[in-house]
Amino acid sequence: MNIRIFDTTLRDGEQTLGVSLSPDQKLGIAKKLDEVGVDAIEAGFPVISEGEFKGVKMIVDEGLDCEIAGLARTTKHDIDAAVDSGLTYIHTFIATSDIHLEYKLKMSREQAQEKAVEAVEYGKSRGLQVEFSAEDATRTDREFLKQIFSEVAKAGADRVDIPDTVGYSTPEYMAEITRDTIAATKLPVSVHCHNDFGLAVANALSGIHAGASCAHVTVNGIGERAGNASLEELSMALQCLPYESKYETNIKSKLIYDTSRYVSKIVGIKVQPNKAIVGDNAFGHEAGIHTHGVLNNPLTYEPISPELVGRTRQLRVGKHAGIHGMNAILEEFGVMTTKEQSQQILEKIKLLGDQGKQITDVELLSIASDVMGDSGIKKIVQLTGFSVSTGIGTMPYAFVKLNIDGKEFIGTDHGVGPVDAALNAIQKITGKISELKITDYRLASITGGSTSLCEVTTSVEDAQGNKVSSKSVGKDIVTTSVRAVIDGINQIMLKKMLDEKPTTKS
Amino acid sequence: MNIRIFDTTLRDGEQTLGVSLSPDQKLGIAKKLDEVGVDAIEAGFPVISEGEFKGVKMIVDEGLDCEIAGLARTTKHDIDAAVDSGLTYIHTFIATSDIHLEYKLKMSREQAQEKAVEAVEYGKSRGLQVEFSAEDATRTDREFLKQIFSEVAKAGADRVDIPDTVGYSTPEYMAEITRDTIAATKLPVSVHCHNDFGLAVANALSGIHAGASCAHVTVNGIGERAGNASLEELSMALQCLPYESKYETNIKSKLIYDTSRYVSKIVGIKVQPNKAIVGDNAFGHEAGIHTHGVLNNPLTYEPISPELVGRTRQLRVGKHAGIHGMNAILEEFGVMTTKEQSQQILEKIKLLGDQGKQITDVELLSIASDVMGDSGIKKIVQLTGFSVSTGIGTMPYAFVKLNIDGKEFIGTDHGVGPVDAALNAIQKITGKISELKITDYRLASITGGSTSLCEVTTSVEDAQGNKVSSKSVGKDIVTTSVRAVIDGINQIMLKKMLDEKPTTKS
Repeated sequence: MNIRIFDTTLRDGEQTLGVSLSPDQKLGIAKKLDEVGVDAIEAGFPVISEGEFKGVKMIVDEGLDCEIAGLARTTKHDIDAAVDSGLTYIHTFIATSDIHLEYKLKMSREQAQEKAVEAVEYGKSRGLQVEFSAEDATRTDREFLKQIFSEVAKAGADRVDIPDTVGYSTPEYMAEITRDTIAATKLPVSVHCHNDFGLAVANALSGIHAGASCAHVTVNGIGERAGNASLEELSMALQCLPYESKYETNIKSKLIYDTSRYVSKIVGIKVQPNKAIVGDNAFGHEAGIHTHGVLNNPLTYEPISPELVGRTRQLRVGKHAGIHGMNAILEEFGVMTTKEQSQQILEKIKLLGDQGKQITDVELLSIASDVMGDSGIKKIVQLTGFSVSTGIGTMPYAFVKLNIDGKEFIGTDHGVGPVDAALNAIQKITGKISELKITDYRLASITGGSTSLCEVTTSVEDAQGNKVSSKSVGKDIVTTSVRAVIDGINQIMLKKMLDEKPTTKS
Repeated sequence: MNIRIFDTTLRDGEQTLGVSLSPDQKLGIAKKLDEVGVDAIEAGFPVISEGEFKGVKMIVDEGLDCEIAGLARTTKHDIDAAVDSGLTYIHTFIATSDIHLEYKLKMSREQAQEKAVEAVEYGKSRGLQVEFSAEDATRTDREFLKQIFSEVAKAGADRVDIPDTVGYSTPEYMAEITRDTIAATKLPVSVHCHNDFGLAVANALSGIHAGASCAHVTVNGIGERAGNASLEELSMALQCLPYESKYETNIKSKLIYDTSRYVSKIVGIKVQPNKAIVGDNAFGHEAGIHTHGVLNNPLTYEPISPELVGRTRQLRVGKHAGIHGMNAILEEFGVMTTKEQSQQILEKIKLLGDQGKQITDVELLSIASDVMGDSGIKKIVQLTGFSVSTGIGTMPYAFVKLNIDGKEFIGTDHGVGPVDAALNAIQKITGKISELKITDYRLASITGGSTSLCEVTTSVEDAQGNKVSSKSVGKDIVTTSVRAVIDGINQIMLKKMLDEKPTTKS
């Protein structure tokens, strides 16, 4: 059974606190959504502002493959705005729960039903496809919900949607009212689930098992408060989980990760590392037992292969490390160890882990070098001098002194900020020496105060396209950033050196 | 029915990629978990390292109210290490799925069962409480799963646990095997659910409905890959959702937010804004329709009150804003507008929102001031000069010049980093003038490069305990931080001024 994916990243997702998109940004996201294969996009709420109206119009005019819908309250004014923006498909809604009727709409059930029917009739009279939502359906009197859905169906609605507006439903109740709604309307039914108790995906799946043919989703699960059912979790669950009925969607799963990162960047809402499917750690393994299993057969500790969603696997050593995972990482750098050496390296790693330290690849190589007594594995770029200034009425500017293989190099540059200035100065030296480029820079968020630790991750790439990432932690944002980059440069230079003279396994 | 909460933040949670805790950090988290009211803590995996062993021992020796368990494979060596660390309760496990048996353990089903039985018998002979997990239970042959659980029950296990190791189960299947397991063992059954498809909480709840009496959880849902069922979502779902059976837990819900923040800070894994219960936006409202409802009755758009989990509500204006929400915020600052003025202010806000801009409270006040022609509402602290330097072989130091109500003030200071130095210099001036303190500093994560925009949020507090937070966005981390603080200072001074001469509503 093919399940229709109705994406509301540009409407409910944009209502996320702290998110405001320009028309161009909305169009950029709409194109990505079309590429990833959603069946319909809710492009916005045309009546709310001129920019929103323009954004919706731009998306309609783009001629994408998917259907384009827009939100409208049950008023002629809202529906006219939707028509004026070029839409031929509206999602119109009115609240139906007693709490919304009493405190927000100050309306009786009968009045709400009348407005709903009028809106559907008006939408149809203007030639639109009409999807009707009974807002707060899951807290609405069950009999009244059936009745209003039945009346809008009679009035000509093309689709109806069951919104769990405050994420209060259980999967069991969602199934029950989905069955009610199908019986009352004989129309295609959608479910729109919020995540206030972490149940958005489960509730949407439960609605689908009960006969709903469409789910409203957002990329990364953004949206009001705790957000909506996430596109990536719902579509992969439908595709991969062992259900009796076979489900399909038109989502191109290999584009999921790219879509997630694009949306995260544009809306400015970061995805947490432990987010399913698209979080940084979703396909990462540290613990020894897990890494061992994954090396023998990735499916031991992965429900799906990361490539399926456009990602790659990540292995890391730490205090939970086992010998197999550690050796696999060392082998990636061309380092072959004896059993005894591995044991010694592992002990040192666990000692560092016990002190609360994370072990980077460079640290692992440096420990390996100590243990193996190979004087060739050493940091070859040293930061011997560094100074940076910024302020108002000045450009941020930096001075850097590096010792590379015993030779001193000096670089100065300016930038848009002190970190940028410092990295530009380093790049001036390394670009000249070995064609290294800093291709990525990330700073993890800081909370708690200006004396908190910050964590910087950078990627460095050489002319051959080899890429490494490195991390540094410290209290001074600027010097920590510089240290991370120097670490990355060392890592890539080490890698090259090790490729040239691999030590041999006994 | 009281559901037992078994927290594994310190074991499965610590296996999160990038997390490594020292014994002291582990103890700190254990105390917090005990305070929030978990019934049992899985303190660690004693055999893996000396530090881990020490951490578990410190937690055992602390004499907390909750039970303390430790992980052990089905070997005497692991179980002895647990006993040596002082534990009287072990969680022992062996994988039972064919894929784990073949590729990881290289063992037959019979061999695995034998090892499980031996471990349980050995644990009991050493006087321990023994909880047995059949790792990867949800991908294990269903008949074999019943059989091994039945055998460990006969061998004397006190509890059994069903781990959905790769988060592959559906709620329906979790219910079925929970019923199987209860029938096969007559023991208290736990469920341990992973979140690879976003279903961890739903699967745990489904196991509980089917008769499981305990759930394994972690704070913020951290853990291997996409993490585990989260303590906050599961416990609040049990407490608040409209189930036929009434559930209770011993969790003190008012401490949930504090616990979440504490763990996030110690483990260094940030919570995404749209995370249920504990995310920044979980009780935030921007859209006009939502804000209007919330002002009349918060339950219109909130399933539970934020105070229940130790939080407060947040309102914000933006392009989706309605007149009611905006006026409510203005009224907080003592600004009363006419209908016409409100309309004009709202139009200006929507215009900014359409350009992709977020509107801070100070910007709202500044727009209100323009519209209302009240020359009294103006920024009163101006940053007229600023310079900061850092590097290697120097301390970060800063110079700041402020114009406050027409008078010039100069401050210099050093700090642990350039931002800290700048904020210290500002504080030297503002502390003297009006006893303002910078109480919080946050920097949102940056991805994509050193020229990316960064977003800084700060909190400023006056001597009377009034607190405001302000935000600034820019490319230079240091000057953006300074601007955010200056914005906060203006906001708090404005607030004071407005309190003294409120304009009147027409």
